[in-house]
This record gives sequence, structure tokens and C-alpha cells, in this order.
Amino acid sequence: MRTAAVIGTGLIGTSVALALTRRGVTVYLDDADTTAAATAEAMGAGSMAAPESPVELAVLAVPPAHIGSVLARVQGRGLAHAYTDVASVKARPHHEIQSAGADPAGYIGGHPLAGGERSGPLAASADLFEGRLWVLTPSAHTERLVLNRALELVSLCSGVPVIMDTVAHDRAVALTSHAPHLIATIMAARLENAADESVRVSGQGLRDVIRIAAGDPSLWRDILDANADAVADVLDTYAADLGGAVTALRALGSADETRRKQAGADLDDLLRRGNRGHARLVRKPGAAAAGFLPVPVMIPDQPGALAELFTAVGETGVNIEDVRIEHSPDRPRGLVELLVEKASAPQLCRLLDAAGWTLPDKNSAAVNYP
Amino acid sequence: MRTAAVIGTGLIGTSVALALTRRGVTVYLDDADTTAAATAEAMGAGSMAAPESPVELAVLAVPPAHIGSVLARVQGRGLAHAYTDVASVKARPHHEIQSAGADPAGYIGGHPLAGGERSGPLAASADLFEGRLWVLTPSAHTERLVLNRALELVSLCSGVPVIMDTVAHDRAVALTSHAPHLIATIMAARLENAADESVRVSGQGLRDVIRIAAGDPSLWRDILDANADAVADVLDTYAADLGGAVTALRALGSADETRRKQAGADLDDLLRRGNRGHARLVRKPGAAAAGFLPVPVMIPDQPGALAELFTAVGETGVNIEDVRIEHSPDRPRGLVELLVEKASAPQLCRLLDAAGWTLPDKNSAAVNYP
Repeated sequence: MRTAAVIGTGLIGTSVALALTRRGVTVYLDDADTTAAATAEAMGAGSMAAPESPVELAVLAVPPAHIGSVLARVQGRGLAHAYTDVASVKARPHHEIQSAGADPAGYIGGHPLAGGERSGPLAASADLFEGRLWVLTPSAHTERLVLNRALELVSLCSGVPVIMDTVAHDRAVALTSHAPHLIATIMAARLENAADESVRVSGQGLRDVIRIAAGDPSLWRDILDANADAVADVLDTYAADLGGAVTALRALGSADETRRKQAGADLDDLLRRGNRGHARLVRKPGAAAAGFLPVPVMIPDQPGALAELFTAVGETGVNIEDVRIEHSPDRPRGLVELLVEKASAPQLCRLLDAAGWTLPDKNSAAVNYP
Repeated sequence: MRTAAVIGTGLIGTSVALALTRRGVTVYLDDADTTAAATAEAMGAGSMAAPESPVELAVLAVPPAHIGSVLARVQGRGLAHAYTDVASVKARPHHEIQSAGADPAGYIGGHPLAGGERSGPLAASADLFEGRLWVLTPSAHTERLVLNRALELVSLCSGVPVIMDTVAHDRAVALTSHAPHLIATIMAARLENAADESVRVSGQGLRDVIRIAAGDPSLWRDILDANADAVADVLDTYAADLGGAVTALRALGSADETRRKQAGADLDDLLRRGNRGHARLVRKPGAAAAGFLPVPVMIPDQPGALAELFTAVGETGVNIEDVRIEHSPDRPRGLVELLVEKASAPQLCRLLDAAGWTLPDKNSAAVNYP
């Protein structure tokens, strides 16, 4: 690929432009907000000049509701030989393309699974998509050339392409992203007016659950507008389980022993289903079968302490899969949890213990006999 | 305090015993499961011998449903001068104490906010409660001596005592722990039979939300049994917001413009309430007012890479508040997010960048002009 255009220089658009520029592609930038485009240009993402001839691929990084109209407009002026987008919903934009008078043969829907709570060109990075899944949703009309240009785009951004049907994609992200975000929002909303002493007893578990409730409301409105029915369908399934849980909890106090037992069995079943669903997520298809074990280590709260620990860990030669640090103003010392392959845990513990580190689990059977 | 007894040598009981033993208290251990008691003894938590005279404090670390009967039994044989427990619900045990024929004057409810998904004596640690909140729920009957013994217990375990009313406590943990756990369970349960391609598009956000769905079902049954009504009340409030969200989402597609606008306004309001509730949790009362900023750094996936980074960070002299590592089998390189005080972020970035580290956000205004 030698030339490309990016319409919309927000987080995703600018990151695409940076990645392509880094790989030697000449990128033409455009945004209704010229300050955003100028910022992206200043960051080295490309040029605000208009291309003199059609580019090989145009990437529409605009909100889902605008894709149809923008595509019709840029196709009308012959901007590119192939077009794609990066919106996080795919079915509705695809419908609107047809009604906007755009040409579906020259277009393939796309959705890179990257980004976060940050937005805008300044938060962009050429590495944003590295190793991340990038969904492509070719329609029956999409030309082979267009699909291949999109595959090249994903490759130049170091992403991992996966082909999906538009409706299946929207249901998948409703289930794994949009509905959970609304649920986290609903839980967080209940804290707004809670008593101080209630908030004070909150633990790390609640923080984990509520973290995603911090997202940008206007961004999420766009997403919910575009995927409303799929999200509502998932919420309906939650509501059914929620109603069942409330009924069972109230029935635990029933005078009728049969009702109490049934209620208990229903709750047991729900808790086990939750365990199994969680396990599904932790062991994603394709992930290594090796199990991991968390090894906690206490460290003093001062500069350099973490570095000392990781130097010590580096000297053991054991690869750390993940790290979690519990540290809050309430706690004078930090607990660091090192996630390692089960087979490596005993060795790591022995070596760190010998080097003088405090390991709460060092006598644990789980660590010593994984 | 010179002598104490711990009844129930699971995670919490054994950790209490370890903490007290470390501070020179003679601890007598008891558990219906003698293997558990022997394990705790072998870990240095105390002695399985029976005390020859009443100890100063007995800690009942048994499931909530057993507190009344166990308390009556041990009070009947004069085990201690004062009694407390560590169960995560307080109101029902308190009621059952009266009906079991125990003496409420000699008892004070307690709940240390510590522990996690691990259970059993081998997972115990003398440091488990360090800096953690420990709720105490004295009743109108509780004697001053008993309250002071409990305060000494919390102090010897390096915890932070906070007095609460039993019902207020149970509502607070229902809101901040028990109901969120059930919601996470409900969300995770929906993944159990989801298509592989749906699971594959899951991101870190969902993992964070679902992490707590991995807990031990029998432990959670005990908790839900003991706090059923308070949890059901919280779930009812979620159900109300959930129903409102579903109604609004369905109405976004209405032909009636007034309904569409109202639906949009309702969703905006919910998203903003979620932001405010989240902010409440992040800025807990008493927490430092300084803001923190995440600084992402890319590291290669090999042993020693993290150590190198933390050595480099240590050399900058900047204190790291938290660390987050995104690393999955899909990604060839790891993204490490260092959470630092906003004022320190520019310096950290400059120094790491100069040392050759890859910083996706180094041009970001948020980092350079916090």
C-alpha cells in the first residue's frame, strides 16, 4: 500500500494514520474539526493536503451514525479505490450505506478492538493495534480487492484480522462490552448517593467491576444508539437472571422448607454458572493450557522497592505473566501479586524467600505442590 | 493481651492467630476439622491444646449460621472473658445469639475487610489485615471491657477499627460487595454458552468486571443466606435501573420524536450518574487529593524485561502508585501501565524515553501538561 486517506482524526483514526505512516504509506488526513486534523498532522500522522489522485484505501474513523453519509460523499468525489471504517458497531452503518446512496461493493466494515477510556488525537499511538483483534465484516457485495486492501491495512497496523457477520459482531460486542458497560454504570450509579461509611467499606472487587463506568458518556451514547436492540436483548437476559436471584433470595426466608431448598439450589446453580462463564473467559480459545498461580510478595512503600523486587525476580529467570499491586492510602505496605506458570511457582518462592522477601503464601500447598 | 482462642482455622481465623502469635499472644486453636487445626498449628499460628483457664478473648471464625450456637457452647464452658467473630454479615448472627441462649454482654460482632478468593489455613498470613478496615458492631448490651479487647485485637492485627450499626454494616456490604458479586456472576453466566467468536472479542474491561465471579460458591452461599434481604433490596434497585435502560434503548428506535429524545436523555442521565458514582469510589474520603495518571510503556515479552523497566523507573526516583500489565497470548509484546502522580508524569516520560523505552503517550497533552 502506498497511499491512504483517514477521515476523522480522533484516537482510532490518528492511530491508524500513525501506524501507516510509520510503514511508509503516504497518508492524507481529513476532519470536520481542522484543529484535530492539524494536531494529527503535527504528530506525524500524515498531511492535511488533498490527494491529487484516488488513494488505495480510505479509512472512515467517524461516529457510526455518520458512516453512510460520509461514505456516499467521499465515494462521490472518488477519494479512494476501497473504503473501510472502524466503528464499534457494524449492522446499522451497513444498512445506512445502502440508503445513503453509497456503493457497498467498494466498502468493507471494520472494527479494531483497541482503545480505551482516552480519546482524541493526542492520545493516539502507532502501537495501539499491535496484536489486537480487528474484525472485518465483508458483505455479499464487497469486492475481493477491497477485502484484500483491508487485510493489508490490518497487517500494516500489526493487528490480527477476523472475519465476522455484521449481526453476529454486534451481538458479540453487545454481550462482551456494551451491556457490561451499562451494568457497571448501573452499579456505580447506586454509589452516587450512598453514605460515606458505605463507600468506605468498598474493596478492590468493587473497583474492578466499576472501572469501566468511567467512560465518556457521549462516546457511549453513540455506541448505544447504534446497537440499541442487541444491547437491550442482552440486558433482558440479565434481567431474567436478576429477577430469579431476587426471588430466590426472598424465598430463603420462607417458612416452607421446599421453597427454601429450591431457592438454595437456584442460587447454587447461578453461582456455578458464573464460575463456568468466568473460566470460559480466562481460558480463551487458543490460550496456553498451562495454569497460572498468583504469588504474593510484600514490599515496602518507597521509591525503588518495586524495582528491587523486579530485579530480584529477573535474577530468578522466571517469566512473570501478570502483576497486580494492591496499594491504597489506607495501607502502609504494598502487596504485589506475581502471576506465574504453576510449574515455576515453587522455584520463584524459594529464590525470593532466600533473598529476604516476605511471601505470605510460601507455606501454601497451592504454591509448593501446584 | 496475653492469651486468646481462635475457633475455626480457615483463612481468616488462621490469619488472626498468626498475627496474634507474632505479637507474643498465646493462641489456642480449635476447629471441628482437626486437620485444619493441625495445619494452622504447624504454620505457627498457635497450639491445639485446650487452655487451662479462661483466655482474654475468643475469636469465632466460623460461618455466620453457626455463630449463635458456637458462642453459646463456648460461653457455657467459660472459654474466655470476651468474645468476637469475623463473619461478613452481622445482623442475623446477632439475632441468633439471643435465641441460642448466649450472653450478648460478653460479645461484640466484628468483620475484618480482608481476604480474597483463596481459602483455608494454608492461604493465611499474619499480614492479611495490615492497614485494612475492621468493622466492629457493639450492641447496646456489649460491655466496655469487651469493646476494648476487640479494639486491642484489631490493633494487634494492624487493622483500622470502625464502629458501625449491624444493619448499616449489612446494607453497606450488600451494596459494595454482595450484590456486585451476584451481578458479576450473572454477567459471567451469560458467557457460559456463548459462541467462541463472541468470547474471542472480549477485552480487558469485561475481565475486570467478571473477575469476582470466580469466587467459591459455598462461601458465597453462606454469605447470601445470611444477608439475603439486604442483597435482594440492592438487586431490586439495579432491576429498576435495568428496566429503565431497556425501555430507553427500545425507545431509541421509536417513530415518535418526543419518545426518542426522552429515551436519549434518560440514557445520558444514567451514564452521567455512573460517572459520578465511579468518581465517588475513586476519591474515597481521606484519600490524597493528588491526581494520578497512567503512563503506558511497551516492553518485550521475555524474562528480565519487566525488571529492566523497573530498574529504569527506580533510577528516575519517581514513585509508582500502581502497575497494570496487559498481556495475553494474542499479543506479542506487553503494554505496562505505570500509574504516577500527575506532576511526576512528564519527568518520568522524558527519562524513560531518553533511556530508549517506547512510550505510546509521550506526545499526549495529558502527560506533558497534566
